[in-house]
Amino acid sequence: MIVEQPVTRFLDELASGSATPGGGSAAAIMGAMGAALVSMMCNLTIGKKNYAEVEGEMRSVLQAAEGLRKRLADMVAEDIAAFDGLMAAYGLPKDTDEQKTLRSAAIQNGLKAATDAPLDCARASADVIALSLRAAQVGNRNVISDAGVGALAAQAALRSAALNVYINVPSIKDEVFARSRRDEIDALLASAVPLAEQAFELVKTKL
Amino acid sequence: MIVEQPVTRFLDELASGSATPGGGSAAAIMGAMGAALVSMMCNLTIGKKNYAEVEGEMRSVLQAAEGLRKRLADMVAEDIAAFDGLMAAYGLPKDTDEQKTLRSAAIQNGLKAATDAPLDCARASADVIALSLRAAQVGNRNVISDAGVGALAAQAALRSAALNVYINVPSIKDEVFARSRRDEIDALLASAVPLAEQAFELVKTKL
Repeated sequence: MIVEQPVTRFLDELASGSATPGGGSAAAIMGAMGAALVSMMCNLTIGKKNYAEVEGEMRSVLQAAEGLRKRLADMVAEDIAAFDGLMAAYGLPKDTDEQKTLRSAAIQNGLKAATDAPLDCARASADVIALSLRAAQVGNRNVISDAGVGALAAQAALRSAALNVYINVPSIKDEVFARSRRDEIDALLASAVPLAEQAFELVKTKL
Repeated sequence: MIVEQPVTRFLDELASGSATPGGGSAAAIMGAMGAALVSMMCNLTIGKKNYAEVEGEMRSVLQAAEGLRKRLADMVAEDIAAFDGLMAAYGLPKDTDEQKTLRSAAIQNGLKAATDAPLDCARASADVIALSLRAAQVGNRNVISDAGVGALAAQAALRSAALNVYINVPSIKDEVFARSRRDEIDALLASAVPLAEQAFELVKTKL
C-alpha cells in the first residue's frame, strides 16, 4: 500500500511520469491531513480545565475526525485502483464488434468508478471542513492555527476531488448517473468551500 | 527525519496531542505535493510530439519544481526545529533578573525563527503556484487536472504558512522585523492566491 511508504517516496511517485498516484491520491492525503489536524486540536483541548465545558463535544469531533482520517487514507489506494481500472478498460482489444461492445461497457463502468472515488473523497473532505470550523470555534485557542490549516487542507482536498469528478462526467453516457454526480459535487462545493473560508477568517481573527 | 516515515505514521503523529508536527509541517507537505504534481505534469508532457513546442519550457518548469519540492520537504523538519526551539525558550528558568533577560531574548529569537520558517514555506509555495499555472496553460491537456490539484495544494500551503506567520508576529518586539514579515506575507497572499484561482478556473474550462 502506497500510504505505508515513506512520505518522500510518495512524493517521488507523485512526481514521476506514471499516471498513478496523481491528483486524486494527493487530494485524499490532503483530506486525511485536514482530519488529522482536527484530531490534534481536539487532543490538545480535551482534559484542559479552561475547555471543560466543550470536552464532550470535542470528544465527538475527535471520534468523527479519526473515522474520516482512516477513510481518507484508505481512499488513496481506492483512487489508484479506480484510475488503473479505467486505464485497463481503455486498453482492451477492439478488433471485433463484440470486443468493441465489451470494451465500451468496461470503459463506462470504469468512468463511473473513477467518478465515485473522488466524490467519496469530496464528501469526506466536506465533513472535515465542518469539523475544522467547529474546532476553530470552541477548541483550544493556543492551537487554533492548526484548525485553520485543517480547514484549508480539507478545502483543497474537496476542490481537487471536484476536478477529478468534472474530468470524468462528460464521458459518461448514463445521463442520470452523470447529472446526479455533477449536482452532488456542485452542492458540496457550494456548501463546504464557504465554511472553510469562514474557518480561515475566524482563525485569523482569533490569532 | 519525519518525512522518511510512512505516510500513515506521519498522519498519526499529526493527529496526536504532541505540538509537533502540526500545521506548519502539513503546510510544507502540501507545498511539496503541489510541486510534485507540477513535475508529474511536466514528465507527462516532455517527449510528447504534440507538445514539442513547449518541451524546452517544460524542462525548465520541471527543474524548478523539483528544486522546490526538495526545499519544501526539507522544511518539514525545519518547521519542527523552529517550533521546538521556541517552546524550549519558553521553558527556560525565570527566577533571577538575569535569567529573565536571557529567557526573553531567547523567546524573541525563537519567535523570529518560527516566523521565518513558514515565510520560507510561503515563498516556495507561491513559486509552485506560478509553475502550476504555467503547466496548466501549456502542458499536456490529458493530465491538466493534476496541474489544477498542484495549484490548489500549493495555495493551501501558502495560506496555511501565512497563518503561522500571523500567529507569531504580534509577539515580536523588533517592529522593523515584524512589519517586514507581515508585509511580505500579505504581498505573497495578494499576488499568488489569485494565480491559483486562475489555474483552477483554467483547468475547469479545459476539462
